Amino acid sequence: MLPAEIIAQLREEFSGQGADPTILEVPFSGPRFRRVLEEAEARLRRLVDIASDYAVLFLQGGATAQFAAVPLNLLGAAGRADYVHTGYWSRRAIDEACRYGSIRIAASMSAGDPPAIAPRDTWRLDPHAAYVHITSNETADGIEFDAAPDVGRVALVSDMTASFLTQPVDVGRYGLIYASAQKNLGAAGLTIVIVRRDLLARAHPHTPAVLHYGLQAQAGSRLNTPPMFSVYVANLMLGWLEREGGLAQMDQRARARAAQLYAAIDGCETVYRCAAPRAQRSRISVCFRLHDERLMPLFLEQATAAGLLNLAGHGRIGGLRACLYNAMPLAGAQALAHWLRGFARRHG
Amino acid sequence: MLPAEIIAQLREEFSGQGADPTILEVPFSGPRFRRVLEEAEARLRRLVDIASDYAVLFLQGGATAQFAAVPLNLLGAAGRADYVHTGYWSRRAIDEACRYGSIRIAASMSAGDPPAIAPRDTWRLDPHAAYVHITSNETADGIEFDAAPDVGRVALVSDMTASFLTQPVDVGRYGLIYASAQKNLGAAGLTIVIVRRDLLARAHPHTPAVLHYGLQAQAGSRLNTPPMFSVYVANLMLGWLEREGGLAQMDQRARARAAQLYAAIDGCETVYRCAAPRAQRSRISVCFRLHDERLMPLFLEQATAAGLLNLAGHGRIGGLRACLYNAMPLAGAQALAHWLRGFARRHG
Repeated sequence: MLPAEIIAQLREEFSGQGADPTILEVPFSGPRFRRVLEEAEARLRRLVDIASDYAVLFLQGGATAQFAAVPLNLLGAAGRADYVHTGYWSRRAIDEACRYGSIRIAASMSAGDPPAIAPRDTWRLDPHAAYVHITSNETADGIEFDAAPDVGRVALVSDMTASFLTQPVDVGRYGLIYASAQKNLGAAGLTIVIVRRDLLARAHPHTPAVLHYGLQAQAGSRLNTPPMFSVYVANLMLGWLEREGGLAQMDQRARARAAQLYAAIDGCETVYRCAAPRAQRSRISVCFRLHDERLMPLFLEQATAAGLLNLAGHGRIGGLRACLYNAMPLAGAQALAHWLRGFARRHG
Repeated sequence: MLPAEIIAQLREEFSGQGADPTILEVPFSGPRFRRVLEEAEARLRRLVDIASDYAVLFLQGGATAQFAAVPLNLLGAAGRADYVHTGYWSRRAIDEACRYGSIRIAASMSAGDPPAIAPRDTWRLDPHAAYVHITSNETADGIEFDAAPDVGRVALVSDMTASFLTQPVDVGRYGLIYASAQKNLGAAGLTIVIVRRDLLARAHPHTPAVLHYGLQAQAGSRLNTPPMFSVYVANLMLGWLEREGGLAQMDQRARARAAQLYAAIDGCETVYRCAAPRAQRSRISVCFRLHDERLMPLFLEQATAAGLLNLAGHGRIGGLRACLYNAMPLAGAQALAHWLRGFARRHG
């Protein structure tokens, strides 16, 4: 969902008042879009505290495109990388990376295991790997890293799609961060890449130009027409994030929202269960199950009737999931927690 | 520009009336977006008359991503392809393709030559090429193909970005057609690919999944989150195209608009010149120059003051250009033609 004031800004954009063309009608090389892109980058650098030795790129293709772009751009002469398998999305990243080089699973999980991030001291890391890849928040499994793991001198790469802009990030601990925009930045079709500039010169010759970090950095993300509307919405969202108090404030809100839900789930333990280890529970994607899976259709039907939409878990994983992105007010989480308790009373 | 009724539909979408989430807030796997995608594909198949042995894909990355995706997906065992060089954009396609295989220029042009499409009987075509690539409309140079050239049994691939949906197309003569959406389909960030299904099985292992035609066809373009808002706007535009009478009607309007401008340019031949051969002049991107290039700043300043925006030619080519996409009314072309005559009178 989007904050009401962003919807109002979009309404204004398409109000048809005034002679100015809308953001959909201006050229990407013209002054209006250039200002939008520059403002978005400046806001992002302030909010996340990104130093000048990192490039910020506005790309297309979502996290899935980055699953290919990361190995294409970064494997370099080493030709190998370590991936930490923590759930559905890290598996997707691994499967795609295997097309491009020698990919080792530094820490794995087995099918059927409850979701968990293997303890850092059990990871088998290759000191000569080109990079180590993690998935900061496994949205289908409901777990997340609480901080950047120490991987020594090897570049740490993180898919932050779900947790981006929901908490402060120590960018200096990463070689590369990527996040697609549909979770916390408004509109699908845009992917943010934050990459340390010394990593820009390793790309494989087969890297498509649109996914080539070095070429896109050189072109200021305008090597080709950017996804202009998504960049425009992202810029509005970044302005909202600044006005709302920034990332520490977002983290506080995320924790408060998630606490509401986990309290309801844990308090109705005869009806619900949450398999994620407590210390790794996601603040963003709260995943849980019904002990009696036969109640699923009834649960979803009654939730939908109560206006609580999109509670089915990821299609490949099943179960239930509440996604609590930045724009969700605390009252929304409270209402859902209240409803979960009511459902448990009726069907426990 | 967009038709006023599309802007009105966008205003309605963000009206804030009713409890329904906006198109930016629904999940891509849910019923609302699924209906939008299905409706867009059905409209496109009706409008362009696309047979079932062609897949229609909704991808990201623009034509520039396709400059890589085409060779990655289609070079196959042959490993070589022929490209027809007709201007700035075909050159871009050639440069990118060279990363992936043996690319031959079947017909070339020299720097400084006036823009022209070499006569078909001068092309040197390789009968064992994986495909022949053309650029249907060179927007920076102002020339276009009037029909699909005969390339025998080799698959013909066309970058139709600028001319897509401006005229009927005999799809059966092509192996693959691609077009990015910002010209005639509304919003940047979406690329349409129409590909004959027998070409889906040739992809190089380095093809990123998001650009892999076979995988995207199998997933109904939902291998990853599609550029939802751009698909939504494209669907509105496709509905508008149907209501306005379809592609024959668009072609008639395009010819009428372009005729206005070429008449003004040719009629003021002491001030303007259009170097494109008459038979190859583009209906969509009218490119011309001032005999006295020193008048350029004055021309652009006075045009902007008159509300005639974006008349500077492509940055790398220079000169002047009027882009006459589907949403431009004849009156817009007439007003520009009138103004061109006025400028010529004042400064001729």
